[in-house]
Amino acid sequence: MPTDNKFSNVHRRGFLLSAALGGIGAAAPHAATAADNEDSVDLTQQYPFYGNAEQAGIRTPPQRHIFFMTFDLTSTQRRDLQVLLARWSAAIAQLVKGETIGQVEPDRAEASGFDTGEALNLGPASLTVTVGLGPRVFTDTYGLAAQKPALLRELRQLPSDAFRPELTGGDLSLQACADDPQVAYHAIRDLARIAKVTGTAATKWAVLGFGRASAGKGQATPRNLLGFRDGTRNIKEDADFEKFVWLKDAPDWQRNGSYQIARKIQMRIENWDTNRVSHQNDVFGRHKMSGAPLTGTAEFDTPDFQKTKADGTLLIPDTAHIRLAAFENNDGLRILRRSYNYTEGINQYGFLDAGLLFISYQNDPAAFETLQTKLGSADALNEYITHLGSAVFFVPPAPPEGSYLAEGMFATA
Amino acid sequence: MPTDNKFSNVHRRGFLLSAALGGIGAAAPHAATAADNEDSVDLTQQYPFYGNAEQAGIRTPPQRHIFFMTFDLTSTQRRDLQVLLARWSAAIAQLVKGETIGQVEPDRAEASGFDTGEALNLGPASLTVTVGLGPRVFTDTYGLAAQKPALLRELRQLPSDAFRPELTGGDLSLQACADDPQVAYHAIRDLARIAKVTGTAATKWAVLGFGRASAGKGQATPRNLLGFRDGTRNIKEDADFEKFVWLKDAPDWQRNGSYQIARKIQMRIENWDTNRVSHQNDVFGRHKMSGAPLTGTAEFDTPDFQKTKADGTLLIPDTAHIRLAAFENNDGLRILRRSYNYTEGINQYGFLDAGLLFISYQNDPAAFETLQTKLGSADALNEYITHLGSAVFFVPPAPPEGSYLAEGMFATA
Repeated sequence: MPTDNKFSNVHRRGFLLSAALGGIGAAAPHAATAADNEDSVDLTQQYPFYGNAEQAGIRTPPQRHIFFMTFDLTSTQRRDLQVLLARWSAAIAQLVKGETIGQVEPDRAEASGFDTGEALNLGPASLTVTVGLGPRVFTDTYGLAAQKPALLRELRQLPSDAFRPELTGGDLSLQACADDPQVAYHAIRDLARIAKVTGTAATKWAVLGFGRASAGKGQATPRNLLGFRDGTRNIKEDADFEKFVWLKDAPDWQRNGSYQIARKIQMRIENWDTNRVSHQNDVFGRHKMSGAPLTGTAEFDTPDFQKTKADGTLLIPDTAHIRLAAFENNDGLRILRRSYNYTEGINQYGFLDAGLLFISYQNDPAAFETLQTKLGSADALNEYITHLGSAVFFVPPAPPEGSYLAEGMFATA
Repeated sequence: MPTDNKFSNVHRRGFLLSAALGGIGAAAPHAATAADNEDSVDLTQQYPFYGNAEQAGIRTPPQRHIFFMTFDLTSTQRRDLQVLLARWSAAIAQLVKGETIGQVEPDRAEASGFDTGEALNLGPASLTVTVGLGPRVFTDTYGLAAQKPALLRELRQLPSDAFRPELTGGDLSLQACADDPQVAYHAIRDLARIAKVTGTAATKWAVLGFGRASAGKGQATPRNLLGFRDGTRNIKEDADFEKFVWLKDAPDWQRNGSYQIARKIQMRIENWDTNRVSHQNDVFGRHKMSGAPLTGTAEFDTPDFQKTKADGTLLIPDTAHIRLAAFENNDGLRILRRSYNYTEGINQYGFLDAGLLFISYQNDPAAFETLQTKLGSADALNEYITHLGSAVFFVPPAPPEGSYLAEGMFATA
């Protein structure tokens, strides 16, 4: 739970400022409509690490930036893994308060201790760091085979897969989200450093993302890099979190955990941009500007998947993304999406190297597989996207103060 | 000039919130000191494109994000270049107001016109787009050889150069800075699209940066990814802008322009992190935490380059970055730095692919060459950085309303 409600602090000065600026420059032919993002971002906001049922960074209203990294375990010692999770927990608890980590010698101006220093004085900026455990953690190597969460396994091959080994898998994951990218970057870097200097885990793949492509409760729905709102029908209500996200019927140390799936999805931006907006609308099944389903007029109108045009064809096409993904067409199945846009320059062909860091949380990885199998086979969007990387993790619940992440899994009988 | 002073609107609630949170979680052993960044960011702030002497994005207080891109001209037609600069000017003037670009059909919900749409409703977010013209613009191909700014040329080979062709050069540059990365990304993407669909220019290289590593006037000094403050001695005063940044004795269409140099500088983060802070301090010549020179106690203390320790050795070492770069040791030479941090995941060796997008403005590219020759030869920092890419551009002044960028250069006798 947030310690403060950032959305109550939002400043909505857009209209006033626009009015004040009316006399400067040309009359605006297509004035920006209301800023539906927050108009200001409060960088003093913080979310505590201890004392919640679930880890922060899942239900937390998505912050503006993410740095996501996975790791391969390099130690075969159970004890090393245990110490790493304890040290990470202690460090995360400090980082989310905007503090430096590790030893500090206050009398020596030149000493910043273990902390790498680039986030000094930047404030907490709503930082959350969410830790995940991959399938290979739960093996005889670490004496943890018996502790494996019941549904944790590698995802099966899906029709959309075009994975690059260097962007796939991992034994541990860190998802740092914050309203300042330098704060998210700093957290991951220092946690990676702890993993490295203890000889426990090495970096595997990482993505820096922005713009939170999926909305949380109380947030306007952001847009992905194809220009469409993403997250209109995302999980937002308590009952749906209970039903689809959190593990409830599970051993103590797993209860209120979840399964995390991360996919690096490249978008063929320039191809997409050559299409008419009417075609783009058919691909998604929504109107680009308003976000309304093609059968409605407002963003949150419920799509009518049966409605037809005068010629008898469906208004929301058979291959439209929202038709294939809708819970109405998937036996009620839902997943929580927490995705971010990314861009990494220009690729070798001169095109924008950009896309979506898709992250979902669900209490059964099969939910993702079911939806992605359908999307990967039939979605009109497939012409414009490629799944480059993938990984799956179990995210344990938050520890109480005085404990650390997944401590219970080491307490074997 | 900004239309509003964003720094007067800054909220400094850090202390209050910290106090309110005192009862939650453990007592903070090393509480964050005052947030010296702005505590909140006003996303309604805007900077007009027309009507200033200089282009925005040079003297403008650095925004939090940058998307920088260079282009190669693909047309050999003078007229195409002229039309592109006119279309870019008109589009930038709309973008900085938070508007969509190009044709919009308001009656059709599905039409967003030419605009790619991902920044709809995000607000202006202090967007500036700064346009540069590379050396090959000023050739007989475009009938512009006679218009070449007197000091524009490719940089000579410098000791630090380790360039990759795919990160080097360009005939045009676009520097989009904004307080929302999606706003900066959107601006560049749509301007690149104009260049492409008109067959005039193709994308060359691009970097998405964050955290503004160099400060502007009235801003606290940000930190680079090595954890050190960067920009403490940056140009901030009117007189220095006049002396070192703007072209004054130049043809009308060039007056109040400047030369822009961009370098993509990779940092060997993990190597750096293995060093003691005392060694890091010697590399920079400053204290990491406070930013003070090694001969002082506060960030803005003037370094004493003669001061020695008891054993007679210099307090600020011979090879320290600030000694080599200081105007006192370079015949008074100064350049305006406007750099940003970047990270692009994990490289093929498992290390963080991160560093600095260095951008400088000066009224003579030789100023950069002089400083970089010295730094590239002797700087202790060279062990930790590699210059991967480089480009140089002439940045013309801002156009008056009704005109467009560099219009005057086409008005040949």
